[in-house]
This record gives sequence, C-alpha cells and structure tokens, in this order.
Amino acid sequence: MTTIDIERVKQDILELGQIGRDPESRGIYRMAFTPADMEGKRWLQSRIDQAGLQSSMDGAGNISGLLPDPINGQHPRLVIGSHIDTVPCAGMLDGTLGVIVGLECLRRLKEMGHRSAIPLELLSFSDEEGRFGNMFGSEAFTGKLTLERLQTASDLDGQKLWDTLLEVGLNPMAALDAYRNPADLWGYLELHIEQGPVLDKRGVSLGVVEDITGLFKWGVTLQGVANHAGTTPMDLRHDAFMGLAEFAHEISRILDENGSRQSRATIGRAQILPGSANTVPGRVDFSLDVRDTSSRVLDELAMAFRKALSAIARRRGLTFDYEQQSWIHPVACASRLNEQLIRSVEGLGIDYLKMPSGAAHDAQMVASIAPIAMLFVPSREGLSHSPAEWTNWNHVQDAANVMLKFLLDLSVDH
Amino acid sequence: MTTIDIERVKQDILELGQIGRDPESRGIYRMAFTPADMEGKRWLQSRIDQAGLQSSMDGAGNISGLLPDPINGQHPRLVIGSHIDTVPCAGMLDGTLGVIVGLECLRRLKEMGHRSAIPLELLSFSDEEGRFGNMFGSEAFTGKLTLERLQTASDLDGQKLWDTLLEVGLNPMAALDAYRNPADLWGYLELHIEQGPVLDKRGVSLGVVEDITGLFKWGVTLQGVANHAGTTPMDLRHDAFMGLAEFAHEISRILDENGSRQSRATIGRAQILPGSANTVPGRVDFSLDVRDTSSRVLDELAMAFRKALSAIARRRGLTFDYEQQSWIHPVACASRLNEQLIRSVEGLGIDYLKMPSGAAHDAQMVASIAPIAMLFVPSREGLSHSPAEWTNWNHVQDAANVMLKFLLDLSVDH
Repeated sequence: MTTIDIERVKQDILELGQIGRDPESRGIYRMAFTPADMEGKRWLQSRIDQAGLQSSMDGAGNISGLLPDPINGQHPRLVIGSHIDTVPCAGMLDGTLGVIVGLECLRRLKEMGHRSAIPLELLSFSDEEGRFGNMFGSEAFTGKLTLERLQTASDLDGQKLWDTLLEVGLNPMAALDAYRNPADLWGYLELHIEQGPVLDKRGVSLGVVEDITGLFKWGVTLQGVANHAGTTPMDLRHDAFMGLAEFAHEISRILDENGSRQSRATIGRAQILPGSANTVPGRVDFSLDVRDTSSRVLDELAMAFRKALSAIARRRGLTFDYEQQSWIHPVACASRLNEQLIRSVEGLGIDYLKMPSGAAHDAQMVASIAPIAMLFVPSREGLSHSPAEWTNWNHVQDAANVMLKFLLDLSVDH
Repeated sequence: MTTIDIERVKQDILELGQIGRDPESRGIYRMAFTPADMEGKRWLQSRIDQAGLQSSMDGAGNISGLLPDPINGQHPRLVIGSHIDTVPCAGMLDGTLGVIVGLECLRRLKEMGHRSAIPLELLSFSDEEGRFGNMFGSEAFTGKLTLERLQTASDLDGQKLWDTLLEVGLNPMAALDAYRNPADLWGYLELHIEQGPVLDKRGVSLGVVEDITGLFKWGVTLQGVANHAGTTPMDLRHDAFMGLAEFAHEISRILDENGSRQSRATIGRAQILPGSANTVPGRVDFSLDVRDTSSRVLDELAMAFRKALSAIARRRGLTFDYEQQSWIHPVACASRLNEQLIRSVEGLGIDYLKMPSGAAHDAQMVASIAPIAMLFVPSREGLSHSPAEWTNWNHVQDAANVMLKFLLDLSVDH
C-alpha cells in the first residue's frame, strides 16, 4: 500500500517551525506579512518547486502548488489547503500541518508518477489568523475582498494592510485578482488540528468535520447605579454586576432549552465599573460569544438571550443595551466529499468521530464557492495558539495517509 | 426654646466648601494634609477662636475647640466630632457637616453664657478618608497609632505620611502624643450624613445609629483553564468566570440563610483573564466585601461564603484561594447616650429611625476608648463622595437642634 513518508513531514514541520521562532518563549511569531511570514512563504515555494510541483503566488500572497499532468486537465480542480501564518507566540502545527501534509501528498503522487484523475492543487492562504481583521487570503480567493477593505483595513497597532502589502513587495490592487471562479473548483479539503479537547479526551485518532459552527458576538452593557457597598441595603441596589451574574447563571438553562449539543456560549470579557471593592457596580460591559452549527438554533439562542437579558434588567432596575459585533453563518461540509473521506478512513481501519468544528477556518470562507471537507487530528489537552500545542506523530501519519488514499481513489466520473 | 442659627451653619458650610473646590467639576479636593486641607484647618481654627472657644491642634493635626468654664471641669468630657478632610471630588457635607454643626452648638452655648455641666469639646479629626490607609486622626487620638505605621505609611501615589507631616509643618513624632486617656472621656457624639438611601427613600428626618457595621474584605481567586470558546464543549470547560457567576448568584441565598437584615455583600471588582471574547476565562480575581452589625453573623457569613466557594470550585474543577484583606469588628453605640439622644429627638417632635451605619466613621475608632453615639441626616438619593451629595437644610437644622438640646439637657449626675 502506498503511504506518505512521515519522516519527511516531521522534517518539514520542524524546519518551518524554526522560521519566526522566539528562542526564549519557544513561541512562533509568523504573523501575516511580517518578515518571518514572508520567509515562510519563500521556504514553502522552494519546497513545492523541489517536489516538482508548479508553484505560484497570487496577488493576495496565497501560495499555490499544482500537481502537473492530470488526466483531465479541464476538470474543476480539488484544492487542498490551509495556512502557514500564525498568531503571536504560536505552536508549530495549527494551519501549517494541513499545508505540509498536503504538500507531502502531492509530492508522493509526483514521485509515484501518479496521474491524477482531476487537477490537484495545494493552497496556503494568507492571514488566516486575521491580523488584518478577516481571513485575507481566502477572502480574496473567494472574491469577497472589496476595494474598501483593501484600502482601509489595519492591524491592532494601526498598521495599514495596504502599506503592509507594498512593503513586502506585493501590489495591493492585485489582491482583487486573486479570486477563483466557482466553476473551476470541484472541492476543497482541509486538514487541521482540532484546537479543542474532544478527540484527545475520547482517545479517537481522527475527526471528520460535518459542520463548521456559525457564531454571533455581542457587546452587552448593563447599567445600574453605583452606590456605597456599606450603606446601600441589598434591596435598594441596582447592581449591574449582579445582573451579569444572574445572566451568566441562566446560560446553561438557555442552552438546554434552545440550543443543540453543539451549542456554546461564552462570556470571555467583562469590565466592571467603577471597579472598587466597596462600591456597588454601576455598570458592566461584557462580551457574549455564542456558537452553533445551525442558523436556526443561533436565531433561537439570540432571541432567548435577548429575553433573558431584558427580563433581568427589568427585574433589577437596570438598563440593557447590546451591539451585535459579528454574525457568521454556519457552514455544512459537503456530504459527497465526506462520504469519500470516511471511505478512506475506514479503508485504512482508522477510528474516527464525526464532529463539528467550533473554530473558524479558511474552509468556512471557501465554502461560498466550493464544496468543502475537513479532517481533524487530536490536539493534546485541547491546546492551540500556544507553544505547547501538539499532536502525536502517529495521528499525523494516519491523517496524511487518509488524505493520500482520498486522492488516489479519486476517479474521473466525479 | 433655644435653637441653633441655621443661617450661620449654611454660611460656614458654603464658605468651607469653597476651600479646595475645583470650579470645573464643582468637586472639593481637600485630601488630608494637602494645602487645601491645611487651609481648611486654619479656617476652622479661626472660626473656633471667633466663637470664643479655646482652639488647639494636636500632633496628629486634629483640631479641638473647648467650651470654656464648665461647672465640673474635672468631669470626663463629651467630645463632638467628625472630620473636614475629603475624598477627591467630594461634596460639601460628609464629615464637614458634623464639625460645623458641633461648632454651631458650642458657639450658641457660648453666646447664651451657658455653663455646661461637663466639659464639651469639638473635635475635627485628620484624614478620616484614609489617604494614608486608615483614619489617622482618630487612630492617634485613641492611642492606636504605632511608630511603624507613622514611619512607613504612604498614599496611593507613594507619598510618605512622615514626609507629608513634615511638609505641612507638623512634627511626626508628636502624633504619638495625640492619644487621650479613656478616663478623660465621658462620650463621643458624631453627626454625619447617612451616605446611603434609607432615610431619603423612607422620607424620615433623622437616623439614630444603633451599630456601626463591621466588615471583612477578601481578595478571591478562582483558577480554571483558559480554552478556545468555539472548540471547547460546555461540559469540558473549567470556566473561572462561570464559577464567579455561580457564587454571585448564591449571595442572596447565603445572606438569607446566615445573615441578618443588616447584612450586605458586594462584589465590586473583578478581573477576568485572559479577557478575550473568544476565550473561556481561565482565571478570575475578585473582591468580596461583607458587612454586618454582629461579629457572630460576620463569622457565620465568612464560613458560609467559604463553603460556597469551595463547593463551586470542586464542582467546576477550579481551584480557589482567598486572602483576607481586612476584618473590622462592628461597634455598638452606647445605649446610655442613645437613650438621651432619642429623648432629645422626641422632645423636639422630630421623626427618626433607629438604624445601623453601613459606612465606617471616626466614631468606630473612638469606640475603643469612649462610649459613642451617632446621628444621621438623609443623603439625597443616597449619594455621597460626589459633588451631587446633598441634604435638605431643614434636616440639618433638625439635627443641629437635637444636638443642642442634647447638650443643654446634660446634667451633672451623668
């Protein structure tokens, strides 16, 4: 049976993992379009070239590697992708794993002299981590990038996307030409680390993603009256923090009543004002992040959370206000691709779990122009975006062999 | 019937209210031992002198005014006091009211040629607001000031108490001589604004304080695990903030089960880490301020809060730690003084409420060396420590006349 070469995968991951690495924290700093990221892109292109694939970079800085000489060159292509940019102080895997495993699969096929039934393309997207506010590379790839965003987007330090592209030698206007025609795409396949604890906790080797969750994010304010903690009786208070606490306490009930098994709600940020130990809080500003794989469920959760907040505010003599900061629709993976992915997994006798993806990925963006599928490997202890992020090599090997089998089993009638 | 002159009280309050006033915010900045506070002290001494009382300042900067020529000069004295220092951006009343009304009462007695049965002394304490961490003036007065504190205390800007005393022309060591002998004190009477909403809400003119609440203050840490808000299922979370929310939600039950009508518990400060909208909080540090008029109740509340925190931490897979930052014992007002105070109130036909003081006052410190009593006037909307702090003049007039009657009715057999 033809398999991938895990030693080559290891070596590539470790080698790319040296680019942008801070020796002290051991974290990787390869944020989009920084010198380290550009060095990573050059490294990747040279690896693609060495493998005998056809490398190129589009106007958004996305790196492509084509397996030459498919049987049907006019057939819509299968793209295998992920990203090599990182958050600050990242680990070695995250998107890099999907790019390197994709590279290894095409490299292997090239070595075998395999003629693919349909065109196969490796793609490494720019700025998946959203340094400039969104997934820039897959946004350009799917034709969603606007001139306005190109001209106005900036990072948290106020550095403009436009200026940044110029600085790294890219023509910003060319990013608008990086879009693909949906008719040219047969599918998109992405391998990624889970970034959550489910596979690791359950001891399962692979995850086949069924849906990528949608989400809404609110900024909520509860306004009460700040008062002296000693002189204000409990029943004369309008304590904004106690309003938040009551709301937080209702989250599990609201999820049970209105959510699904995939529903998640998180209060990750809260600022309490005036914030002094002996003052009843007069105001609290907090974030609410709610996710589910169904748009209908998200709608119902939004309504239930609104009702709960409004009832709590009324009962406690607070005022309540919220701003919807984002609403991202969930995306379903294509059953046609998933069925074949599962055949590959089962064909290799590997245990797997059908699961949702709680995190956003390039695949979510690409889903607007092509059928998508995603494969997860376990994240040890659920960790990601950290130097401690890790996946056992045997799981990487399994996933890479599944992907190789998937490509080998592609037939022209697709 | 002999009464105070409310116009004189008004004029004094308004005049002292100009010292340290910021024209823009209209707030008063007379923090202890600042130039404005020292100007206030000089103003007060000159007013005491003008009234024909005997003024002096002790080593802690406490200002005293004695009514001359009591019938029994050797009898332990009655001190009438409060403070004229302020928090930053304060209102005109707070402690100032008690000092000015005390001044007016002794001034009136002097004008009347009244010979008091026992010595009467007005006292304006230094730094009641605790710029240097405690009530410095009454601390020195009661003999609780230590050399160590004198030498090490500093304000929030790191300015040393010792240097500050030198700068305003006081000999720091002399503060240690400001203590009084308990045998020389027959009682201590303090008028203060309520600083809470109870009298104002109920439309009652005066409050006779029965107890000054004690309190304990904890700094609590709940430690969980920070995780991705999208990829971490609800049942695999160790969300530190949800632990806090559950605890906050239990406060009312805990007060109902273990507290009294006077119990208060406040979470005024909370810091959530890492504090990002899409990260499950891994840690939360928060303050817990608990008050009651009974030491026994405070003990029981402390135990109940510990149990609740520890059960929540266990249930949610968090660790829990707390530091007791202060424990101040409650103080009861002297029934002998309160009974006479109530006779004065009832004698003037004024409506009143027996109530606790939820805030700390100089009286709480003085209680360690003398029987104390306190009288409250309503705070409009419960506001204090704010330029909006106010009390209707008719309530001030009532309180001042009660105090005058109390002094006139003192007899030698006390």
